[in-house]
Amino acid sequence: MSRTTFPLDALAPDRTSQIPLHRQLYQALKTLIQERTLAAGTALPSTRWLAHDLRIARNTVSAAYDQLITEGYLSNRAGARPVVIDLPAAPTGNGPSSASEAHYPLSRRGELMTSQPFHYGSPGHMAFHPGMPDASNFPFGLWSRLLARRASFARDTLFGTYNVTGHPDLRQAIAAYLKAARGVHCSPEQIVVTTGAQAGLDLLARILLDPGDAVWMEEPGYYGAQSAFIAAGGHLLPLRVERGNWQLDPPADRQLRLIYVTPSCHHPLGGTMRMEQRLRLLDIAESRKAWIIEDDFDGEYRFQGQPVPAMQGFDRAQRVIYIGTFAKILFPALRLGFIVLPPSLQANIAQAVSITGQFAPLLLQAALADFFEQGHMARHLRRMRRIYAGRRQYFHELCAEHLSAWLRLEPGDAGIQITGFLREGLQDAVVAERGRRRHLNLSPLSMHYRHGVPRQGLVLGYAASDAAATQRGILSLRETFEGCS
Amino acid sequence: MSRTTFPLDALAPDRTSQIPLHRQLYQALKTLIQERTLAAGTALPSTRWLAHDLRIARNTVSAAYDQLITEGYLSNRAGARPVVIDLPAAPTGNGPSSASEAHYPLSRRGELMTSQPFHYGSPGHMAFHPGMPDASNFPFGLWSRLLARRASFARDTLFGTYNVTGHPDLRQAIAAYLKAARGVHCSPEQIVVTTGAQAGLDLLARILLDPGDAVWMEEPGYYGAQSAFIAAGGHLLPLRVERGNWQLDPPADRQLRLIYVTPSCHHPLGGTMRMEQRLRLLDIAESRKAWIIEDDFDGEYRFQGQPVPAMQGFDRAQRVIYIGTFAKILFPALRLGFIVLPPSLQANIAQAVSITGQFAPLLLQAALADFFEQGHMARHLRRMRRIYAGRRQYFHELCAEHLSAWLRLEPGDAGIQITGFLREGLQDAVVAERGRRRHLNLSPLSMHYRHGVPRQGLVLGYAASDAAATQRGILSLRETFEGCS
Repeated sequence: MSRTTFPLDALAPDRTSQIPLHRQLYQALKTLIQERTLAAGTALPSTRWLAHDLRIARNTVSAAYDQLITEGYLSNRAGARPVVIDLPAAPTGNGPSSASEAHYPLSRRGELMTSQPFHYGSPGHMAFHPGMPDASNFPFGLWSRLLARRASFARDTLFGTYNVTGHPDLRQAIAAYLKAARGVHCSPEQIVVTTGAQAGLDLLARILLDPGDAVWMEEPGYYGAQSAFIAAGGHLLPLRVERGNWQLDPPADRQLRLIYVTPSCHHPLGGTMRMEQRLRLLDIAESRKAWIIEDDFDGEYRFQGQPVPAMQGFDRAQRVIYIGTFAKILFPALRLGFIVLPPSLQANIAQAVSITGQFAPLLLQAALADFFEQGHMARHLRRMRRIYAGRRQYFHELCAEHLSAWLRLEPGDAGIQITGFLREGLQDAVVAERGRRRHLNLSPLSMHYRHGVPRQGLVLGYAASDAAATQRGILSLRETFEGCS
Repeated sequence: MSRTTFPLDALAPDRTSQIPLHRQLYQALKTLIQERTLAAGTALPSTRWLAHDLRIARNTVSAAYDQLITEGYLSNRAGARPVVIDLPAAPTGNGPSSASEAHYPLSRRGELMTSQPFHYGSPGHMAFHPGMPDASNFPFGLWSRLLARRASFARDTLFGTYNVTGHPDLRQAIAAYLKAARGVHCSPEQIVVTTGAQAGLDLLARILLDPGDAVWMEEPGYYGAQSAFIAAGGHLLPLRVERGNWQLDPPADRQLRLIYVTPSCHHPLGGTMRMEQRLRLLDIAESRKAWIIEDDFDGEYRFQGQPVPAMQGFDRAQRVIYIGTFAKILFPALRLGFIVLPPSLQANIAQAVSITGQFAPLLLQAALADFFEQGHMARHLRRMRRIYAGRRQYFHELCAEHLSAWLRLEPGDAGIQITGFLREGLQDAVVAERGRRRHLNLSPLSMHYRHGVPRQGLVLGYAASDAAATQRGILSLRETFEGCS
């Protein structure tokens, strides 16, 4: 390209612009190359020549050229003028929308994962989101002070990629709490802090299950756990639960790899596993060489008597893996939970955690350790237990008064959710969908079944609603039922 | 058991204890049952009788009995005295330590996951942790104020299980930032906030790869990405990178499912992919119907010229998945990163995220959105770029002065880490181990190879060390080398 045909006009700088001149020149040249106005093989003017013609400094031109060389638009030959590189056209094809592929952008596992049942709330649809604690009684002011204090001094230990398995202060606090409150025996080294119980289930499913391995899973059972096992390739076998009774007849013809139970407070039905069954289950696990996951999501909330100690405390064969969460006793969006591993599973767990990227923000962990340390956790739990007992009572009363034609509540005295069975003929998914239009957050019981015909019911969280909200919610639910009849 | 033989002494209350009387009685009875002093079938005394003999209130006895009934130690027959249940002995076996099993407590996948390479720091071992930003220049005071402000008003939108794919404010802020700073084109809806880049890689590996699927992976390449693909069952094929050149000859005989690249700043070698190669890679991905993961972990730090725009912005076929992290531009323990998905992968991604339990704490996300919104991010980046440029320069000078006999630095002008190749005969793992004893955090280059003979080198993070720390570190490294000779 000769000096006279070079498209100098397109490069004229705008001296009123905020954009630096070298950046303007870079952008203008890039456009000329992309549009092929400057064809491949074109030698650009020397920096001296172009600087002169554009009336800009020579190192402004150099800066623009350098950037284009870095990005690969111009070749860089020492001492020579840079030359426009022959670039292939950017692909413009139809890509993933082409027919054969449109139905299969994901892997088979990806399809499985994205098709699992899912129930999450939206702000403002509180009644009756299952497992949701009460926000208005959480000490946010205190929490904000604990966070701010730790954040101001975060630089040394809360900054880097240390403590993949959990902040030492928090692991210590959790071990002490579990011993006192849940009868769990463990050292802080057995604890892995996770970004919630689901993350713990996901990690365990992956390190314990190979595709095809059998999981003896409560039926009905927590759908999040089922999804984690299925995503890891596990094969679910039903461990049927009804009226506080676990049918402990393990399938005779299959090797069992994993057993999942919620013995303190069954999810979703709310029963408590009797001691006899706990001991039998431990025995089955040992003789079948299976792991037990004891998911203690709700064990702190028992409204008659004391919380029932965890099964982990009776396990002498080190077969039980205990999972806990702070989603119910503090709040879900905190995203903190933990696993207690038997010593035989401790080795190299940090490697597995680091692959998942699951390790939790250190700042939140440190603030939570302080929350324990300063006695706030014990106080908060005592207080919430009292509040929830009252709400539970009121919820029962209103259900009896308004909903008995459609809903029969499962008896029980634990947990921050209550399951009700629907009258014959009502479909829980339909009720939930109709309720959604009335700003109710209803979780269908049928989501928790994977084998045979699911029972129809609703898993109702009562804890987040004060008396007025409970009343509004129950009346809305009555209208919903009336609309379904 | 008759009234005279009943072990009343063992139940005598301690009235000086802090423990409530019903709890003392419960504990004492439980011990008697567990020790089989109270044998199965024994009918317990009536509440009236026992209350009288122990001189305690009758409802204290009832409370203890009720708890034992709940936990399954006593049977509950209406109107009758409770009877001790026949409990099987707790298993005491050797459990997982028995010979055949001790070597195989995990699944095959679990063994794979726990045996992946792993490199994390410990507080106090800062020099020369790769990818580590500078803690002392992070505005912790400001961060603490942003957190505290959001925490005080957290109750409505930052409390529950909403926004699994990310807080709306943060997704908005990231989309705007990516457009301006990285040339990435996306709507906020395409963004999934993750608990860091590794979590994003792990999620993508699982939803895109089935076991056996081929991944064309940079060699050397980021070991964390390799681990995520391997854990998902991916089969790695090497995409060789040397001196800023990506050898783009895809294996002819295999279906490619996924391509992993770090085009803005190669990890670990530091080169930048030229435009010609970017366009060719996009073309290969389209013709082979493969996904590209563009991991832009370090693209913000370029010290000559401007950051090179991301490949995602040139991708018209929607084949590129872009991954970013705040670990390098803010700090690692924040545990926040993100994925930009092509629209064809957006559907139902919340289900997959919810299985992994990976969704990030909403409070941190909201505070980070404010950090962007109020202009702190842009200021912080400008400031750190200036500081790191100086540190990089100084690091180069000291290496040339002290380490040239052992270490040859790879040229490059981007990133907060620099790779050096070791002199023939030195083993990087040995050097790293010796350095550890001198409180150096050295990451061996050989970790990043999976095929053939790895090159020996060190990946050195210079950004977290001020002049004094850099000098101390370099001198320690020299002593380490001297000790290896």
